[in-house]
Amino acid sequence: MNDTFLKACRGEKINYTPVWMMRQAGRYLPEYQEVRSKLTFLELCKTPELAAEVTIQPVDILGVDAAILFSDILIPLEAMGLILEFHEKIGPVFPDPVRDQKAVDRLIIPSPDEHLNFVLETIRILRRELEHKVPLIGFAGAPFTLATYLIEGGSSKFFFETKKMMFSNPELYSGLLEKITACTSLYLKAQAAAGAQALQIFDSWAGILAPVDFERFALPYVKRIIADLRQSTDVPIIYFANNGATLLELSKTSGADVLGLDWRVDIAKAVEHIGPDISVQGNLDPIALLLPEKELRARVAKILEGGRKARGHICNLGHGIHQFTPPAKAKIFIEAVHELSGKGS
Amino acid sequence: MNDTFLKACRGEKINYTPVWMMRQAGRYLPEYQEVRSKLTFLELCKTPELAAEVTIQPVDILGVDAAILFSDILIPLEAMGLILEFHEKIGPVFPDPVRDQKAVDRLIIPSPDEHLNFVLETIRILRRELEHKVPLIGFAGAPFTLATYLIEGGSSKFFFETKKMMFSNPELYSGLLEKITACTSLYLKAQAAAGAQALQIFDSWAGILAPVDFERFALPYVKRIIADLRQSTDVPIIYFANNGATLLELSKTSGADVLGLDWRVDIAKAVEHIGPDISVQGNLDPIALLLPEKELRARVAKILEGGRKARGHICNLGHGIHQFTPPAKAKIFIEAVHELSGKGS
Repeated sequence: MNDTFLKACRGEKINYTPVWMMRQAGRYLPEYQEVRSKLTFLELCKTPELAAEVTIQPVDILGVDAAILFSDILIPLEAMGLILEFHEKIGPVFPDPVRDQKAVDRLIIPSPDEHLNFVLETIRILRRELEHKVPLIGFAGAPFTLATYLIEGGSSKFFFETKKMMFSNPELYSGLLEKITACTSLYLKAQAAAGAQALQIFDSWAGILAPVDFERFALPYVKRIIADLRQSTDVPIIYFANNGATLLELSKTSGADVLGLDWRVDIAKAVEHIGPDISVQGNLDPIALLLPEKELRARVAKILEGGRKARGHICNLGHGIHQFTPPAKAKIFIEAVHELSGKGS
Repeated sequence: MNDTFLKACRGEKINYTPVWMMRQAGRYLPEYQEVRSKLTFLELCKTPELAAEVTIQPVDILGVDAAILFSDILIPLEAMGLILEFHEKIGPVFPDPVRDQKAVDRLIIPSPDEHLNFVLETIRILRRELEHKVPLIGFAGAPFTLATYLIEGGSSKFFFETKKMMFSNPELYSGLLEKITACTSLYLKAQAAAGAQALQIFDSWAGILAPVDFERFALPYVKRIIADLRQSTDVPIIYFANNGATLLELSKTSGADVLGLDWRVDIAKAVEHIGPDISVQGNLDPIALLLPEKELRARVAKILEGGRKARGHICNLGHGIHQFTPPAKAKIFIEAVHELSGKGS
């Protein structure tokens, strides 16, 4: 198996920089569209054979160095007892937002084996099929990010309801976060037990918080999950606080092996800032894949140079690949990372 | 006139920290809702007597140290020959997005006196009515931010079309930006000539750009406008690159007197980073106004402390006040800034 990715996570010596792309199993690939055309997004997440198939597509088509489980961060929230819908153009919707103690009390902490077995089954299939290929990354949303969806009832622009609860009813907020944290902890442990070889925690909305609020309302729950995972597994853990340029120092205290960097950060400066004792992942602007090949390669070279001073560097986009990206552009990116970092030389 | 705000912009000695709030003339005020109920948003922008009335409301009701012209950054784009609509819940819409050379060629560079006289008239009324009160801030959108609306046809989540044009057709992009820059330059000069005593340039979407792209695709146009303004006016200029934590060093080279800081930044660290030779404005999370009074005051104290090492500090929110904010909370904020920074003591 190509274990370059796992080695980079742990800061071990490698011969070239591994690369994968957030949302690499997704709509920009015609092969994905083909599978997806036969069922809904949620159905696809819940059909292990097909979820495994789309997970592997970018490995075969693009030559990435890691596969990431095809799923959605909101899947375990549905298992907590909530109705989850995906509407075209709007995105995810929870028709019954969680905004009072009663709604928090109603949430169950699902047993992964019982309520989320389709995810674990997908992981088991993938481990068999990826055996001689690349490692498999499992993932979950960070508790704060998951809470925003529950409280807002979906995505949001200003996150007024979330912050209102944080600021004016911190007890209610922490009660909700405790439950989400317990659920996420069990869920990630089960993923590792089923065979996930690394785990990424997506804090997609961390960047809406001032550092002082991130420290109080988001980070403690991530720390607890990571500390808890360390009791039962030694798989590398990646923490990605999106739009988190001002949260890097705090994020480093999460206990993660790798910090994800979004594209707003100059990777060289970020590494200088957080120090050479942790690995980093990132961080090309996904839409910069549209640059002419020469400029794209120059930008990849710059990112590789910036990552060189970190303990380890996994090249990636700074956010999920956009659905209108030509797959050929993604391929140029993957190949440029390999070539410019010395693969095969 | 209370000129504390202007002095803080210029870094002159003051006895207390001036404060105003972005979007202070807005929907959270019942007095604004009352005026607004009689006409559409765009009509209100174009009716000088009423636009002046709502501009003054927060000065009288909350005791802020500066008034900001009631208008919208998209107003001059309409004058460039485009149809602009405001839809409830969606926001601004340009039904004919600007995505090719023909559309760029069709744009006119409006004469402010002729096409935007209603704005200048509002400013003239305001200067008379604010004579013994506070200074008046005029404003415009930064060219990059304005371009995103034209290219996307409104607001956006990923700004795919904007970045696509930047990355794959930079000549088309720069042609469009040149025209918007010329328009904005004339518009701000006319505002100063009509009586605006400070000018703020809102780069609301600068934060979607990697530093390397901000430097190439956004900053040069801001620099040009500021250099151009310096030829004809000495009013202080505030540049606010929203979500711009990683753009501060570059923003400082814009030539502005004051840099606006959004709430994601720790103001003390930002000041340390950019140095003591420029003023700063900000930066409470607008929704943190919902904190209990004691905590809100503590947070204000921390922001004031952070701002103390800057050349000058104008206290403000880190973004526009949210429409569901109780006006009483805004009042606590304004009073806390004054009291904790030594007004009247």
